[in-house]
Amino acid sequence: MTPDEFRSAGHRLIDWIADYRETIGRHPVMARTEPGSIREQLPAAPPESPEDLEALIGDLERILLPGITHWQHPGFFGYFPAVASPSSVLGDLLSTGLGVIGLSWQASPALTELEEVVLDWMRQAVGLSEQWRGVIQDSASTSTLVALICARERSSAFGLSRGGLQGVSSPLVVYASEQAHSSVEKAALLAGFGKEHVRSLPVDSEFALDPEALCRAIRADRAAGKTPCAVVATTGTTASTAIDPVGRIAEEIAGQGLWLHVDAAMAGSAMILPECRHLWEGVERADSVVLNAHKWLGAAFDCSLYYVRDPQHLVRVMSTNPSYLRSAADDRTVNYRDWGIPLGRRFRALKLWALLRMEGLERLRSRLRRDLELARWLADQARSTPGWRVVAPVPLQTVCLRHEPPGLDAEELDRHTLAWVDRVNRSGEALLTPAILEGRWMARVSIGAEATDRGRVESLWERLRREAEG
Amino acid sequence: MTPDEFRSAGHRLIDWIADYRETIGRHPVMARTEPGSIREQLPAAPPESPEDLEALIGDLERILLPGITHWQHPGFFGYFPAVASPSSVLGDLLSTGLGVIGLSWQASPALTELEEVVLDWMRQAVGLSEQWRGVIQDSASTSTLVALICARERSSAFGLSRGGLQGVSSPLVVYASEQAHSSVEKAALLAGFGKEHVRSLPVDSEFALDPEALCRAIRADRAAGKTPCAVVATTGTTASTAIDPVGRIAEEIAGQGLWLHVDAAMAGSAMILPECRHLWEGVERADSVVLNAHKWLGAAFDCSLYYVRDPQHLVRVMSTNPSYLRSAADDRTVNYRDWGIPLGRRFRALKLWALLRMEGLERLRSRLRRDLELARWLADQARSTPGWRVVAPVPLQTVCLRHEPPGLDAEELDRHTLAWVDRVNRSGEALLTPAILEGRWMARVSIGAEATDRGRVESLWERLRREAEG
Ligand SMILES: Cc1ncc(COP(=O)(O)O)c(C=O)c1O
Ligand SMILES: Cc1ncc(COP(=O)(O)O)c(C=O)c1O
Repeated sequence: MTPDEFRSAGHRLIDWIADYRETIGRHPVMARTEPGSIREQLPAAPPESPEDLEALIGDLERILLPGITHWQHPGFFGYFPAVASPSSVLGDLLSTGLGVIGLSWQASPALTELEEVVLDWMRQAVGLSEQWRGVIQDSASTSTLVALICARERSSAFGLSRGGLQGVSSPLVVYASEQAHSSVEKAALLAGFGKEHVRSLPVDSEFALDPEALCRAIRADRAAGKTPCAVVATTGTTASTAIDPVGRIAEEIAGQGLWLHVDAAMAGSAMILPECRHLWEGVERADSVVLNAHKWLGAAFDCSLYYVRDPQHLVRVMSTNPSYLRSAADDRTVNYRDWGIPLGRRFRALKLWALLRMEGLERLRSRLRRDLELARWLADQARSTPGWRVVAPVPLQTVCLRHEPPGLDAEELDRHTLAWVDRVNRSGEALLTPAILEGRWMARVSIGAEATDRGRVESLWERLRREAEG
Repeated sequence: MTPDEFRSAGHRLIDWIADYRETIGRHPVMARTEPGSIREQLPAAPPESPEDLEALIGDLERILLPGITHWQHPGFFGYFPAVASPSSVLGDLLSTGLGVIGLSWQASPALTELEEVVLDWMRQAVGLSEQWRGVIQDSASTSTLVALICARERSSAFGLSRGGLQGVSSPLVVYASEQAHSSVEKAALLAGFGKEHVRSLPVDSEFALDPEALCRAIRADRAAGKTPCAVVATTGTTASTAIDPVGRIAEEIAGQGLWLHVDAAMAGSAMILPECRHLWEGVERADSVVLNAHKWLGAAFDCSLYYVRDPQHLVRVMSTNPSYLRSAADDRTVNYRDWGIPLGRRFRALKLWALLRMEGLERLRSRLRRDLELARWLADQARSTPGWRVVAPVPLQTVCLRHEPPGLDAEELDRHTLAWVDRVNRSGEALLTPAILEGRWMARVSIGAEATDRGRVESLWERLRREAEG
């Protein structure tokens, strides 16, 4: 493809995307395809000869689009908001267009230095002190894996340079609440700790980690000859945006050598609002923090921001330095390959740079405040409507609801919840993803699509009542 | 940003990228900035108010571009080719524009099913049998980490469900050649094996792993009470594209329970050429293979293809299944979150789909054949020119050269090599990254930028002679 062919195909595709975003509300939010039905429509063998963009757009519209669940739809209230703001789409396009790879500082200095700058902007934007240094990882899952590996190496005095976890005499243990994201246990298992050394701690009535339970678990493990290694505190759990008390946890473990990792994957975006920062009070005492700019904030996936207080420790754990990667500038520069798992790196800072500059923090703050306000409004409606219950606190943009008609036992209530949520989803107007809290299904309304507004949330509430109350 | 603002800014950016690609040859290939000089020119604080695309493009041209090493430049012969073909740039733009996240099949069925189809296309294109199933990872580093974790869990009978590596009685050992990529040792260390349990094996005169040395190492480890766990064979090493004998390695370890992972990160692309497939003869006996479509093939980073023979084992190691991710379709679909580390996933299949359809395999094959031919031509020139030596076999597109003036001792020769390579790089016309082979620096010429051609390689050869011979 010549640059000129790229030019005309590019214009066509930009128009297609603009049209898609403009008319996205006309699609049913949730894909209704059957497993395998898209695969069946695609050729089984790879193409030998070139085709033009029109052929691809034809298949996109005919075959792929019906199999898309539209995350940018104003009626998307499922999972979590994963806003791919148009400005960040452009920043990401620029990155792909430049096509440079950040193997090292020298391999494209601007890639590294813009990442340093933009991560420092975000540090300031969320109110972290100057002691933090950041890097972009692909996902919170990876960030948490990196954090737990760093914790493992600190507790084992760099066991990786000797026998690894295979040489540890007193087994290392990881702690998190039972409401922590599944990526925490996954990270601990991938890092080799083993399920027997991962503690899933009870939560209080607001679904937050109970620091006393943590304390008891640590004491019991020490008594059993184990080595408490790391605690993951969640600021904004996935099911209900519950807020673990970071400060109290830090207090409990102070001086005991445990690594404190704060998983603020979802709620970290809210910290651009000064009025929300009390939610992670104590974060300055953590060792690492992850927040996903690719969720509510608006950077296109993947853009998980991982901050650490001790970058030297991170580099010591992650670094490699073979001859083909060495350069004269090594001592005076950051080499982000040594801050995470992959060697090759995209110019991901561009999408965050474009988002922050083309939106500006003021506009981002007002969008997030809009969503907090909409969540409060929805929770108020539910609280004042007979038969409805808000089943968890609403500190942010997620409202956990149950419609509880009298006379249903627990199993019947679950069936009722799943059935009405399913009717909402099949309506095509809105998407909710239910989750289990205290052993029972509930409906999560996770507000935050960029295109949503008050009218959408009002009609969502009407729809919920209609589908649930019958 | 409204869809219409996106539309006009998008057109502007597409034109900018088309112009950039068209005129890329006018830039010096290698950035000449000093560490910190880009950072210094950028504002220290994040922007509060929105700016338009022109402001960004202004800073891009003035501040960032001088700090870019141009990987798509026709004179880029450094590291490895990382072709971001315009067609794949468009496919990636579509992915970002759609802004969907593949947490699960249900979260966007087309994302999963297109990935299944396109990975099967690539399987056929590189001549792997139907026993292989593939998934896109971000990088070969990550793919190899996943492979070694899978190996660890097979050897330990799923230790992760018990005490992890902390519960293993006979330490697990990983083997690779001393020419293996640094990501192999890194993966082994991150997975917890420990440096004492990673064997760096000697190579033969062609820099390929010596299967007998492997055999001896395995025997010695067994005798010492250790458990041989995994071998990584490289098809196309980073320094010199050396080819480990996969078939003979498979033969040596047959029936011993070791995992065989083939790192074909760079050379895997060549397997779309039937005449190259003998290079990984024996690959069908491996457990996993990685090949980076984001290198020579032409997919924009990140697009590392990871193939396994036993996807159920992979899923058993990687899976998580909390309530908020469950869906009725789970049993009948692939959930790629359980095939790797991150939970969230981009619609990465689109860039490979766009590449394969808009280029077609025939054109991709002729581009790769062009590069093989250019490498042979360059090696022939060097072999027939007094004072020059081709220091490693040239099975693919990388030529390892040394200019060896008479009378220099080893140290002086290193200084000479680094000095003339530096002069080439400072010329702005070409970029080479030197590497160490047998303890001595050499110049690697890694051919494969999409925009390169015979003329470029001819003038590169003239330039090399001029700068080296003085
Ligand atoms: C609290 C929390 N942690 C981690 C994650 C995982 O995020 P990622 O997909 O970036 O790995 C999520 C997202 O679902 C989350 O809500
Ligand atoms: C043989 C080999 N393996 C692994 C890698 C690492 O690739 P990635 O950047 O995708 O992790 C490279 C690239 O430099 C390579 O040449």
